[in-house]
Amino acid sequence: MSAYLRSIQSPQDLKRIPQEHLPELAQEVRQAIIDSVLVTGGHLGPNLGLVEATIALHYVFDAPRDKIIFDVSHQCYTHKMLTGRARAFNDPDHYGEVSGFTNPAESEYDLFRCGHTSQAVSLGCGMAKARDLLHQHHNVVVVLGDGSLSGGEAFEGLDNAATLGSNFIVLFNDNQMSIAPDAGGLYAGLDELRRTHGQSPHNLFRDLGLDYRYVEDGNDVDAMVEALRQVKDIDHPIVVHIHTLKGKGYPWAEQHKEAAHSVKPEAVRKARQVSESYQQITRDFMTIKMAADPSVVAINAGAPGGVGLTPEFRKLCGAQFVDTGITEPHAVAFASGIARGGAKPVFYVMASFLQRAYDQMMQELALNRCPATILVFGAGFYDIDATHAGTTDIITTGNIPGLTCLAPATREEYLAMLDWSIDQTERPVVIRVPEKVVTDADVRRAAHEGAAVQEARQAFDGSHPSRWHVVRPGGRICFLTIGTTVDLACRAADLLEQRDGINPSVVEALNYASFDEALLDDLHRSHDIVVTLEPGILCGGFGEKVARYFGKTHLRVLCYGGKKELLDRVPTEEFFKIYHFTPEGIVSDIEGLEL
Amino acid sequence: MSAYLRSIQSPQDLKRIPQEHLPELAQEVRQAIIDSVLVTGGHLGPNLGLVEATIALHYVFDAPRDKIIFDVSHQCYTHKMLTGRARAFNDPDHYGEVSGFTNPAESEYDLFRCGHTSQAVSLGCGMAKARDLLHQHHNVVVVLGDGSLSGGEAFEGLDNAATLGSNFIVLFNDNQMSIAPDAGGLYAGLDELRRTHGQSPHNLFRDLGLDYRYVEDGNDVDAMVEALRQVKDIDHPIVVHIHTLKGKGYPWAEQHKEAAHSVKPEAVRKARQVSESYQQITRDFMTIKMAADPSVVAINAGAPGGVGLTPEFRKLCGAQFVDTGITEPHAVAFASGIARGGAKPVFYVMASFLQRAYDQMMQELALNRCPATILVFGAGFYDIDATHAGTTDIITTGNIPGLTCLAPATREEYLAMLDWSIDQTERPVVIRVPEKVVTDADVRRAAHEGAAVQEARQAFDGSHPSRWHVVRPGGRICFLTIGTTVDLACRAADLLEQRDGINPSVVEALNYASFDEALLDDLHRSHDIVVTLEPGILCGGFGEKVARYFGKTHLRVLCYGGKKELLDRVPTEEFFKIYHFTPEGIVSDIEGLEL
Repeated sequence: MSAYLRSIQSPQDLKRIPQEHLPELAQEVRQAIIDSVLVTGGHLGPNLGLVEATIALHYVFDAPRDKIIFDVSHQCYTHKMLTGRARAFNDPDHYGEVSGFTNPAESEYDLFRCGHTSQAVSLGCGMAKARDLLHQHHNVVVVLGDGSLSGGEAFEGLDNAATLGSNFIVLFNDNQMSIAPDAGGLYAGLDELRRTHGQSPHNLFRDLGLDYRYVEDGNDVDAMVEALRQVKDIDHPIVVHIHTLKGKGYPWAEQHKEAAHSVKPEAVRKARQVSESYQQITRDFMTIKMAADPSVVAINAGAPGGVGLTPEFRKLCGAQFVDTGITEPHAVAFASGIARGGAKPVFYVMASFLQRAYDQMMQELALNRCPATILVFGAGFYDIDATHAGTTDIITTGNIPGLTCLAPATREEYLAMLDWSIDQTERPVVIRVPEKVVTDADVRRAAHEGAAVQEARQAFDGSHPSRWHVVRPGGRICFLTIGTTVDLACRAADLLEQRDGINPSVVEALNYASFDEALLDDLHRSHDIVVTLEPGILCGGFGEKVARYFGKTHLRVLCYGGKKELLDRVPTEEFFKIYHFTPEGIVSDIEGLEL
Repeated sequence: MSAYLRSIQSPQDLKRIPQEHLPELAQEVRQAIIDSVLVTGGHLGPNLGLVEATIALHYVFDAPRDKIIFDVSHQCYTHKMLTGRARAFNDPDHYGEVSGFTNPAESEYDLFRCGHTSQAVSLGCGMAKARDLLHQHHNVVVVLGDGSLSGGEAFEGLDNAATLGSNFIVLFNDNQMSIAPDAGGLYAGLDELRRTHGQSPHNLFRDLGLDYRYVEDGNDVDAMVEALRQVKDIDHPIVVHIHTLKGKGYPWAEQHKEAAHSVKPEAVRKARQVSESYQQITRDFMTIKMAADPSVVAINAGAPGGVGLTPEFRKLCGAQFVDTGITEPHAVAFASGIARGGAKPVFYVMASFLQRAYDQMMQELALNRCPATILVFGAGFYDIDATHAGTTDIITTGNIPGLTCLAPATREEYLAMLDWSIDQTERPVVIRVPEKVVTDADVRRAAHEGAAVQEARQAFDGSHPSRWHVVRPGGRICFLTIGTTVDLACRAADLLEQRDGINPSVVEALNYASFDEALLDDLHRSHDIVVTLEPGILCGGFGEKVARYFGKTHLRVLCYGGKKELLDRVPTEEFFKIYHFTPEGIVSDIEGLEL
């Protein structure tokens, strides 16, 4: 078993296998993917579909001299196995040893770290241009999926590739699925191409000025080898459109394409359960809201999984749900248009992907004051790939003029904000969905609030969306918190009380894009030290705004959050220690201050 | 003269004109555009080409009930004349009274402020979706140019429009030009459509699932009225492809399409002369650099005007220049690919447009450490439309992990940085091209440097790209400056010296994305007040980083820069006063500090 796979340390070894044995290798690779992903979690369906095409790629082309670039790159498992990293998939002792994306730090066969989508055509175009300028002669091959094709950047890349006038090969993997089913007008055209075996004159790729070839069965390794041999060393740009089956060879994955796109093992599922329940909270709320108001519409840009837009919920929504394809820029402008038209859009998006619409948030949404709601999931500190870091949303959204940015700490605050945001007609609103579910009661308990304070506490007040909340009144030291960092603040406050007899105050900065100036000026009078806590990168973030606000005063400001880096699969406890993002770390810093 | 135009206060008045007289109206409108733009400056060519189509739009459709949305919106002059704002074009006393873009604050006929490109299809899609959810019945019409079609967001919008299943009309204005000549593979397809009068089966729009109709002469008002009448109230999405002549009716504009795209009157030209000469400095340097190294390649995303990439220079570059179309996301990924491939890309871009590639800067460029150079023009405080504000580049680039961000103050620093950046192979670099040309000698003079200091001063040192420059040593108060704000700092320092006998130091923060910690710690020892000056929005900017750095110390930090707003055509002196961005403003703030 795994006899072929074990013999392959590099594509050179692969090339020594007689072509008629490649199907056996494919079988080994497929089994290794299934066995390992069911343990480690990962992108199951996309990789199962691309086994034969990847074997053919490395069988025909000469990497690393020839350049092979994977879009999104979550479909690179076979590539990793054929380039010296097989044991991470076929030896349980080494499972998880490599990341799920290409990474130049891992291998010279990996050219880029790609985790967002639709960028590889542009990257490949650049590599081809460099090759031509340097008078080199090798193939540049880009592996692009049909889901990625909906992203405008892929279109920009294809449109420009046509002008290269030299070798450039796009292997277009059409498995008729994005993460969820494909969305957009172009897919009917792809369907026509498949039905006509690539012969239809209606051909998006040719219309963009590209040569074109069709492979009926992209899971037939012989057909793939043959097709790639024909385009190797071609002297102009060409798209090789291959038809594959997502999840191929694993019946459950073939039948449940969306669920099998990316699977989580039981352990990960459990660890993430808390974050997943905000998906449920949102679904429950939106089900009622949308039924009551048919002008409320949920929007997603081709990635419904992380934001809780299940197939069942989408079906329930009917016309009140739109999947725009993998198109964050369009999605934000689309939401802006819906809001201007008088309906009530809610754009569900992962923190890391929202930044693709930075310009549209600044121009179409905020400058135009369109009252749309953006729900940001996956924001905060997670043990995740650098390409998907959740630590940049505050710096991305919080500095855009005209954008109201809310960070609830509790379930009650979240629902109050969401309800208010959908119905108000004055302003665009970003809501940072918390990482874990806590309730107002939890926070009160943590803050040791007396009855009087409990009474004073109220849910988010939409008539004053810049107002912050004092959850624990005190003096000398004040913790200003974003979202669920209120929990860390309460623990640090307790520790200070125990160790130094100080009674610090704790304040939730519910709106991290503007100041509650009355509250800040109160703080100024009764405090010496302000400590800010934010679940994201400090540079450009919330704490720095506070530091500027108090810069000309006697108050000392200590800011806690992330360094200017995108952490790559680092356990949270590890960097929390480095960042002093712990009660002990914070308290010892405060104690060490020279006042 | 202007008899028809003067009679039109709204589209209702237009509809009373017999159709056979519309050509006379078109003549009046065209003359008003020529007369006014030659005085005020503005987008000449695009508006001259769209006169008849716009008249037909308002003749056939019923705005404001029907929604007409202009992409980029710089081609809206006729629309403004027909919707109650004619005198801003046909009465010299009122020239310049309206802006050059659509603006809802000006008129209910203007639905959005659009200044960036390729967004209107998405906005229109949103308005159509809102209409359907609200069970309303009106037309949604988007006016899209062929240049804008190269932007991926337009593609995303068209792809999604196809799934609307209801009324949606894209008036596609094909004048065969972007700002410069069109770039990209799709334009050959458009050419084929024009040659076949829209009959070719190779049709990008149909491939995206959209209905399609062609109008041979989009400058024939009768043909336009006829075509639009046929699509009015249509029950599905359709593209009406019209063929027009950019600059129509003004021979110089017809012949010099790029120069006539946007013209500046003499007064504006003179006021901007200093900024334009950095374009010349860059051209002179790059001419030599590119000749010496054939792997250096200049890139631009469809907007060569503001960055000095003249037609002559582009021609001189040959294969060492690439216009990617209006595709900032692609352009940054493309540059990343070129750098990874071993060649030396320099992406020229206007500050306001760079933000469209925020995600690509974070992911493809910086996370992948691709040594590309981005030259940012038009950054800083200008009296310009809010959609084109140059005040967001520092907050956009300066917080991205792994991006080196340089802000030269002088010609010598700029050239040293540019030369270093192109040749180094370690890191992606953003260089903020200064607003006005000053030299090292100018700064020395302004800073009253003695001979010893002059000797110590050196050009930017690439082996320490995080090192800052002390241009005036001193004590107690330190000015930390970005780019040409060093000039303001020197003047404020002089004033402090005169008025209070203090000798402040002045430091250029050459790299605004990282700290010269050795220098900052020196400052800490010998200063009480740090004053930061930056030509951009303070929120998320440089000053806040300094405030955080010194937050836990006794040092007071005062930050000067822009408020969190996109200023709309406000004279610089006006907001400099409001922002205290003057020597007097700063000094009086310092004098008022309670230490």
